[in-house]
Amino acid sequence: MFDEPIERLVEYFRSLPGVGKKTAQRYAFYILENNKELAQNFAQAIVDVKDKVRLCSECGNYSSTDICPICRKRNQKVICVVQEPKDILSMEKVKTFEGVYHVLFGTINPLENKGPNDIRIKELLARVNKNGVEEVIMATNPDVEGEATAMYIAKVLKPLGVKVTRLAQGISMGSDIEFADEITLEKALRQRQEI
Amino acid sequence: MFDEPIERLVEYFRSLPGVGKKTAQRYAFYILENNKELAQNFAQAIVDVKDKVRLCSECGNYSSTDICPICRKRNQKVICVVQEPKDILSMEKVKTFEGVYHVLFGTINPLENKGPNDIRIKELLARVNKNGVEEVIMATNPDVEGEATAMYIAKVLKPLGVKVTRLAQGISMGSDIEFADEITLEKALRQRQEI
Repeated sequence: MFDEPIERLVEYFRSLPGVGKKTAQRYAFYILENNKELAQNFAQAIVDVKDKVRLCSECGNYSSTDICPICRKRNQKVICVVQEPKDILSMEKVKTFEGVYHVLFGTINPLENKGPNDIRIKELLARVNKNGVEEVIMATNPDVEGEATAMYIAKVLKPLGVKVTRLAQGISMGSDIEFADEITLEKALRQRQEI
Repeated sequence: MFDEPIERLVEYFRSLPGVGKKTAQRYAFYILENNKELAQNFAQAIVDVKDKVRLCSECGNYSSTDICPICRKRNQKVICVVQEPKDILSMEKVKTFEGVYHVLFGTINPLENKGPNDIRIKELLARVNKNGVEEVIMATNPDVEGEATAMYIAKVLKPLGVKVTRLAQGISMGSDIEFADEITLEKALRQRQEI
């Protein structure tokens, strides 16, 4: 319906997570409706983020400085281990967590030929050894690879005398027990809490 | 939580219509997770759209060519008049409309000192005179300014012998009569259809 430069921009907006065609069109029209300066600054911000941002040398999260703001400011004694940087976005919704993170960049996955040395486990061990860490919280995904990775890391951390915990599994708030799968229900039953 | 280049990109994504902070962060992380080439092409697409896109000399819609694809391909004898280019996006959801558009870029609005000469009414008259137009459909917003503008345009078009229509007003699909406002209900009653 539109011609090339507009359709191309629509396609790029559409590649963003969760964006459909209509939303992408609205975004493209927003750029069209605004002045050239906004478009240029927006474009520059996109390029800059790739030019200036690297990985925090402590936790592996995206950062433009050697050590990211979270590692600089928060409690180094509690480390929450996640698979990907975007998982930090989700964990940060929990405003009460005051510890730091460690990004593995993947999981142990034999099918993809990924072993313990292919994700950032060595770096995690070094942090635990160095900083007097008290607790490592495993926040890998509750699937086969995430579970296996959590178990493996727990095993290698135990000899260091650090407490290793795993996010609780169970029924999620607002969900319906009628539709919960059996594995989730079994976990919820096993990890039941006294009230 | 993030440092400058990331936060700046988040802010730009957040300025897009309907985008909150969490969504903007997910968009920024998508850029971070992908390669530099995607970021550069995305940025270029944003800049290009402002550099290459102008207004179609017929209808006023965004186009990179002198005449936009809709004006080139569709039935010139039916013109749908809208306030802004983005209204064309909405109208195009109606797949059965085969006519063309005319963008006014605003409404007659005495409070903002906008008279008939400040929106593209002259251009509409020229098109109607030139192309043997059979029908002009007024699709301005159903508010005071949109109504007044539709009425004004109908008045100046009538002498040219062209049929002028207005989008029907009434209760919308999926809405609830209990919560419909009195003006909408009055219009729906007055424009009732035999079934």
